[in-house]
Amino acid sequence: MSPKFTAEEYEQGIRAGDRVLLAQAITLAESMREEDKVLAKNLLKRLLPYTGHSLRIGITGIPGVGKSTFIEALGKELIKQGKKPAVTAVDPSGEESGGSILADKTRMQELSVHPSAFVRPSPSRRTLGGVSDTTHEVIMLMESAGYDVILIETVGVGQSEVLVKNICDIFLLLVLPGAGDELQGIKRGITEEADLVIVNKADDDLLLQAKQAQTDYSNALKLLRGHEAPPVLLCSSLHDEGIAEAADLVFRFEKTQKESGLFDARRAAQQATAIREKAEKLLLQDFSRWMAKNEYREDIKKLISGEKLLPEEIAAIFARCYKERSD
Amino acid sequence: MSPKFTAEEYEQGIRAGDRVLLAQAITLAESMREEDKVLAKNLLKRLLPYTGHSLRIGITGIPGVGKSTFIEALGKELIKQGKKPAVTAVDPSGEESGGSILADKTRMQELSVHPSAFVRPSPSRRTLGGVSDTTHEVIMLMESAGYDVILIETVGVGQSEVLVKNICDIFLLLVLPGAGDELQGIKRGITEEADLVIVNKADDDLLLQAKQAQTDYSNALKLLRGHEAPPVLLCSSLHDEGIAEAADLVFRFEKTQKESGLFDARRAAQQATAIREKAEKLLLQDFSRWMAKNEYREDIKKLISGEKLLPEEIAAIFARCYKERSD
Repeated sequence: MSPKFTAEEYEQGIRAGDRVLLAQAITLAESMREEDKVLAKNLLKRLLPYTGHSLRIGITGIPGVGKSTFIEALGKELIKQGKKPAVTAVDPSGEESGGSILADKTRMQELSVHPSAFVRPSPSRRTLGGVSDTTHEVIMLMESAGYDVILIETVGVGQSEVLVKNICDIFLLLVLPGAGDELQGIKRGITEEADLVIVNKADDDLLLQAKQAQTDYSNALKLLRGHEAPPVLLCSSLHDEGIAEAADLVFRFEKTQKESGLFDARRAAQQATAIREKAEKLLLQDFSRWMAKNEYREDIKKLISGEKLLPEEIAAIFARCYKERSD
Repeated sequence: MSPKFTAEEYEQGIRAGDRVLLAQAITLAESMREEDKVLAKNLLKRLLPYTGHSLRIGITGIPGVGKSTFIEALGKELIKQGKKPAVTAVDPSGEESGGSILADKTRMQELSVHPSAFVRPSPSRRTLGGVSDTTHEVIMLMESAGYDVILIETVGVGQSEVLVKNICDIFLLLVLPGAGDELQGIKRGITEEADLVIVNKADDDLLLQAKQAQTDYSNALKLLRGHEAPPVLLCSSLHDEGIAEAADLVFRFEKTQKESGLFDARRAAQQATAIREKAEKLLLQDFSRWMAKNEYREDIKKLISGEKLLPEEIAAIFARCYKERSD
């Protein structure tokens, strides 16, 4: 896609609630093309004052746990409460799972056409090797369009969960009834991160099993995290049961966190991490450019060839020369 | 484990063929402890002249393809030919799969007790977060102990395959008979990297299916890689069939590569990659130290707080200040 508008036009359109322009701007932010990136950056700079005010909810769980059905139900509940929810997904691989996420999103049929909601269909398939994550930029764009609750779905792979954790204010773990003795997520350490655990599909035949799972998770989490154990809630996205309670718990968590100062502290820590990672990336890019120019410099060659050296010793010479460079 | 010997004592023991000291030195090289690392580095510097002469064979394939049985059969064949094989494994996660690798190794019963062979039981479980890969150091230690063919097994995860590819002279892909239309490895792009494809378990009832798989892989590889398509060989590690042929193909590949200069070019490229990666790591460590010291420096604070900035802009300021630092 070639951008059709200027940063100013995008800004005005997005601020005025133009969903087509918002979708286009998100595509720009996700693009790997240099000119798209420049435009996206200019746009984000303009929109910066309108960002940051939303509640960012991360949602994870194994495939089949019913993430998109839950998100649709929660989104509709939020609209009922006067909120404007937007949905996006983190998919760092941009590959295999891309298809299933797209399929999931087309299932959020009611939410995606609701005038108070915005559902980003799927991260655009990224160019090979482009694992750069742009979720934060997407969230900023959605916030500046007036959406005040951002639902961030993960594909449920380890890497994407870390990304979401670094971006959300509250982290929801969805689990299935009948987990039995091998509790989903506990093994992978996700329950250590969850702020709220939801036993989904607690409907009809599965209700008894769901209640058992609720007890099992509660006990396990109390053992693992003591006072800080998150609540475990039963939900039936299908029958719209427990969804209002989930929303209630989410907003109560937000309130407590804000009162204690933990909300701002978490945001600040996330910001610091993002800045550090971006700075490291810039540094490595600069080093790479320097290496390409200086790899065969005579003084470096002399240093290296003088004696037999271990790779790590040669690496140390390169690192030192880079640090001491004058260019 | 506390090291019991000096670098000089380790050197002499390893050069004299002391397997216990070799095993201890490998544990040192894999250690995350600073004093172990220093000792390992001193030892590697002493051993450097005795390294690099072996043929390094990478071996990959999905779990269940019979990697360890194949490695045992190949190792015994190599001994028959007067070689001294050593076996190690790449396990970048150091987690879940650790158990299965250990189990695999204990199955190489004949090879592991043979006086001409050395089987490293399993990468020692690494400290949490320590994903540093030390396979190259392990190979250097094995080489300086006189082992002249190093068999490097991967756990068959994407990341470990990349690591092995960056370390071996020839890359073997093991596949199962009856792959059908969904050829293993082709999807993941591994067949693009393989120098030799082996249909393993081509025994008894599976022979017909194995021959079909051989044809399928040959055709697919010719389509994918044309003239550069690797040979596809049938092997039965169980009945020791095709193993001598596999060894023969491996050494013929080595000979052709050496004659064409590609062998040395591949080693040089691997060395360059290793150096670059280690230099990048040093740089990031230095940046991290600098950040810890300077994060709250007044001039930087002023730069950042002056106006509303995007995380990437703040990151650029940090990167620039680091580059321009005087300390």
